[in-house]
Amino acid sequence: MPELLNGRATNGNSNYKETPYSPVLESEYGEYRSLTERMNRRIQSGDPWYSLEFFPPRTANGAVNLVSRIERMSEGGPMFCDITWHPAGDPGNTEKPTSSTCMAATMLNYCGVETMLHITCSNQDEDGLKRNLQKAKDIGLKNLLALRGDPPDGGDTWKKQEEGLNYATDLVKVIRREHGDHFTICVAGYPTGHPESTSYGDDLRHLKEKVDAGADFIITQLFFKPETFFQFLRDCREIGITCPIIPGVLPIQAYQSLRHIVKLSRLEVPKEILDTIEPIKDNDEAIRNFGVEQCFQMCRELLKHEDVHGVHFYTLNREVATIEILRRLGMWVEEPCKPLPWKQTANYVRCKEDVRPIFWRSRPKSYIHRTSNWDEFPNGRWGNSSAASFGDLTDYYLFYLKHKTPKEDLLKMWGEELNSEQDVWDVFHCYISGCPNTKEVKVCSMPWNDEELSPETNLIKEQLEAINKRGVLTINSQPNVNGAPSSDSKVGWGSPNGYIYQKAYLEFFTTKENGIALKKILKNYPQVNYHIVNKNGEEDTNCDLTTPIAVTWGVFPGKEIIQPTVVDPIAFKTWKDEAFELWKHPWGNLYPEGSQSRKIIDHIFDSYYLVNLVDNDFPKDSCLWRIVEQMLEAGRQTSSVEEMDVNGQW
Amino acid sequence: MPELLNGRATNGNSNYKETPYSPVLESEYGEYRSLTERMNRRIQSGDPWYSLEFFPPRTANGAVNLVSRIERMSEGGPMFCDITWHPAGDPGNTEKPTSSTCMAATMLNYCGVETMLHITCSNQDEDGLKRNLQKAKDIGLKNLLALRGDPPDGGDTWKKQEEGLNYATDLVKVIRREHGDHFTICVAGYPTGHPESTSYGDDLRHLKEKVDAGADFIITQLFFKPETFFQFLRDCREIGITCPIIPGVLPIQAYQSLRHIVKLSRLEVPKEILDTIEPIKDNDEAIRNFGVEQCFQMCRELLKHEDVHGVHFYTLNREVATIEILRRLGMWVEEPCKPLPWKQTANYVRCKEDVRPIFWRSRPKSYIHRTSNWDEFPNGRWGNSSAASFGDLTDYYLFYLKHKTPKEDLLKMWGEELNSEQDVWDVFHCYISGCPNTKEVKVCSMPWNDEELSPETNLIKEQLEAINKRGVLTINSQPNVNGAPSSDSKVGWGSPNGYIYQKAYLEFFTTKENGIALKKILKNYPQVNYHIVNKNGEEDTNCDLTTPIAVTWGVFPGKEIIQPTVVDPIAFKTWKDEAFELWKHPWGNLYPEGSQSRKIIDHIFDSYYLVNLVDNDFPKDSCLWRIVEQMLEAGRQTSSVEEMDVNGQW
Repeated sequence: MPELLNGRATNGNSNYKETPYSPVLESEYGEYRSLTERMNRRIQSGDPWYSLEFFPPRTANGAVNLVSRIERMSEGGPMFCDITWHPAGDPGNTEKPTSSTCMAATMLNYCGVETMLHITCSNQDEDGLKRNLQKAKDIGLKNLLALRGDPPDGGDTWKKQEEGLNYATDLVKVIRREHGDHFTICVAGYPTGHPESTSYGDDLRHLKEKVDAGADFIITQLFFKPETFFQFLRDCREIGITCPIIPGVLPIQAYQSLRHIVKLSRLEVPKEILDTIEPIKDNDEAIRNFGVEQCFQMCRELLKHEDVHGVHFYTLNREVATIEILRRLGMWVEEPCKPLPWKQTANYVRCKEDVRPIFWRSRPKSYIHRTSNWDEFPNGRWGNSSAASFGDLTDYYLFYLKHKTPKEDLLKMWGEELNSEQDVWDVFHCYISGCPNTKEVKVCSMPWNDEELSPETNLIKEQLEAINKRGVLTINSQPNVNGAPSSDSKVGWGSPNGYIYQKAYLEFFTTKENGIALKKILKNYPQVNYHIVNKNGEEDTNCDLTTPIAVTWGVFPGKEIIQPTVVDPIAFKTWKDEAFELWKHPWGNLYPEGSQSRKIIDHIFDSYYLVNLVDNDFPKDSCLWRIVEQMLEAGRQTSSVEEMDVNGQW
Repeated sequence: MPELLNGRATNGNSNYKETPYSPVLESEYGEYRSLTERMNRRIQSGDPWYSLEFFPPRTANGAVNLVSRIERMSEGGPMFCDITWHPAGDPGNTEKPTSSTCMAATMLNYCGVETMLHITCSNQDEDGLKRNLQKAKDIGLKNLLALRGDPPDGGDTWKKQEEGLNYATDLVKVIRREHGDHFTICVAGYPTGHPESTSYGDDLRHLKEKVDAGADFIITQLFFKPETFFQFLRDCREIGITCPIIPGVLPIQAYQSLRHIVKLSRLEVPKEILDTIEPIKDNDEAIRNFGVEQCFQMCRELLKHEDVHGVHFYTLNREVATIEILRRLGMWVEEPCKPLPWKQTANYVRCKEDVRPIFWRSRPKSYIHRTSNWDEFPNGRWGNSSAASFGDLTDYYLFYLKHKTPKEDLLKMWGEELNSEQDVWDVFHCYISGCPNTKEVKVCSMPWNDEELSPETNLIKEQLEAINKRGVLTINSQPNVNGAPSSDSKVGWGSPNGYIYQKAYLEFFTTKENGIALKKILKNYPQVNYHIVNKNGEEDTNCDLTTPIAVTWGVFPGKEIIQPTVVDPIAFKTWKDEAFELWKHPWGNLYPEGSQSRKIIDHIFDSYYLVNLVDNDFPKDSCLWRIVEQMLEAGRQTSSVEEMDVNGQW
């Protein structure tokens, strides 16, 4: 009976279709897989990948834009993104937006993309190098591209230094000696020879040395014809280089930049390319169209080769051309898989993380930042993990949030002058509804949101609009869901053929009158768990003091239940401080001290309640809207009785 | 606004009604609460409890019966059960069914009842005592009743020993000195004075010494009038004894036993009782009726007192009278709450355990035994806990299973002579259907079941009956459930207002032909996870090699998802050996070597497959019956082709 006993399936998901080119699903969470391992899996499955190279921008604003671009491009499913080492830009600085290491940390931890940092050894003593390696490790990096680096004096020729490291081979050796197998190491290959090497043959031998010293794979310098690469590949294999060799390609995007690159890398552009672009050199669009077509054709040729498993793009920090080429190659992931309802980081330390409190759903970067010192991350369920303490809010420095929207733009959105609480309520209403404010400006962000409204919020948008206008200032919410398919475009996540569940959740600020009214009303709703708290932490709740409540969970074939979002009473104490503080900073601080506008925000900060409500009876229509309606009705009556008490004294 | 901020609820379940007198729900799993703590909680909530005292039987058969009785009586919700120390019965022996410590271990770990062991110090040196204390700790006990013990020589008077411990006070001190707060310690109070004490006053002072030495509560010797106890209570409080004092009561069940007890404890039976029972002393039923009535009235009087929070029953190892009294008092739990779908142990080491593999569902004692060496128990989810290794099956010595059914009874149920595989299939059919076999004997147990069929099996009984008759020998199954109320009488468990889910599960032995057919059929059912394995471990599966599948889970207000039952591929390897072995022992071994019956069982052991199937699509009608039907149809065809191959060679 051999047919029964032979075929042990090695993968529980063998029956389920996997989206092609989906590195997110491929690696999934739960176990960190090194870049080498992931490459080998893709090589075995015959599923080619791509990677994207960027360089650090010169200004903080440029950095903000690049982070946004990398966030967008990481949606398309690159195997990894890499950032070049810019020796003049204080590259080891982890706080400076324009430094290589800071950018790598941001890509890895906040954009959630597998990241590789270039690192060079020239013009640097071994101690400095070691410090940089340690920093790379500390921020959570697992991948380095080891390069010798350009001449220190900016001159054309490189001179061997007496002290220090002179070759990429030495650098690879130091990385391996100091950090063992911690890093996956990539090295550069030069299909047309390194410009400074004595010969193509010498160059190949140096490459072999780099690999023998411990490099895991090779990315090539750019080239313009597939044959150039194929010849190089043959020559490498000939001398015994067996690791993956990834062709690096450049979509030509402008005449000037091509000339610049060619000059730097001392490459020769083939005559047929020059002949084609010279006549159109002033027509940017025509050049780009040519570049896309030329690069697409070359990639297609390259990927036909049985020993080519991926392509590396020199993006020049631009997205349009590269995305177009990837789309035409069928490698761009149009509908990215969400393994979990929220986006994970790519930091290996957090690879098992699969539960978070719902509170930071619209401020994931703040959550990542405040938990970055945790030794372990909640896995499987929140359980007692909430015992770990959150980092301080005052430490919350993330350059691309700070620089994202200038003060004048915030004032235009949130009101240059506030005359009443209703003015504040209207800002919330505009944010939810998408309607422009009285100054015809769209309110596209709020202090409580890193990002735009999630698509699922649209499911309850009408209700939210109505209550925000009336002073129920919602900052977080989700509808109840009773077994939606995991493929659902709004609420779906996780692997195919699963079922998604949610308990209805509503979190809002509201007036003290409403808070008082709410407490009485909630006595009639035993199925609802609630927290009602003011800025001083005076709290009313019917929740257990330590037990988290799962509010989002999924049931999948062949797995345990996954419960990625919880309402945790302990984490809520931390979140409550952050949520109240956001009234003052950034909002209140926009206005001069003593101004009417500032006083209104201060009054809200001092007197409003932060409320959260969980309707545990998820299979039935949510009762939360009825509760809010009753609260508004009761609060209105109280309010008219206590009208005299305008100073927030109670 | 004080009314909003005052009332912090201290309990998340404050909105949900709790069943009164339900120690199981009260303590729930997740956190061990000492007996003292649980008593204090019940005192605070004004919810009186009861406890039950037993003594070790003289024979192994008696022990088997007592274990069954304690299992039944623990369903009624006692706060704890205690077992007396029987010095002549090798009381410290953990392996001997009739020893006190062995019985305590069984009650605690397998009956799942909070257990207290009596322990005495007379006629024993300190080293011997320490060994006994250590054993009590090792088996997981947390509660001891510290007594001086009876005279060593069986004589009437106790003599102070030169060496060794002479008073219960000394014993309490040793327990506290050696084990700190590990044990909750109970001591005995004598409402009419200890028979050997010089005076009632001296006796009270000794009791005060015992409490001062570290005892947590007091249980009294039996008495016949509430006033006797009330006077004692007043006197104890007077001299500063503040701990709980629990009256011990005896339901009079027979004239002779009353006389015996009275003689042993040198108590005086009130004249009005003697006058009543003397005339009916030969009428057991009349005596028992009197005893029930007398004890019920006394308990009612006692429980009216504001300082009486529980009653302790001297059951004399009988159940009828005690249960009747408890029912009349309204203290017997008629519908015990199930915090989880399976019964937990009461061992504090396992208090957080809330996930088990489904395989041992009908053999929970085997599972508890085989995991008793684990350092940690799966909590929240099975996760990677399956890495812990299971204890050896050959160690599986549990006296009350060994002695439960004599060989001749097994033969009557399972067939004194087997002539074909069909005979075996019919035994399975009889077990499931409840129909008697050809010898008119009911098959009330099978090797794969510690216990009777679970009520939920009735939900799919018809289907099971039909397929067992045709050689699909089911040993475990559950129907799919899509959000039943947690109060459901068949599939419900856990706290109120929750929703219960199950994936359909079917586990069976079947012929090699069926196994071959099944593998092909399963290709058409990607929603089904399966394992098909023979005795040699040759396995076919589409499951991930390490990922467990949740097959039972519950969603409750104010909590994370609870997923107490999983199909775990690693645990299955262990279970598979146990499941196959059960064919040989106890079944095959019933027959002489070389007999036809033995050969049939051996053939099944050698050639059959063990199959388990999980239908992941739990909201839809289960497809498992259709799969089995198709397998039987296809297997029948294969079988007729290969008919010649009768020796199991393939």
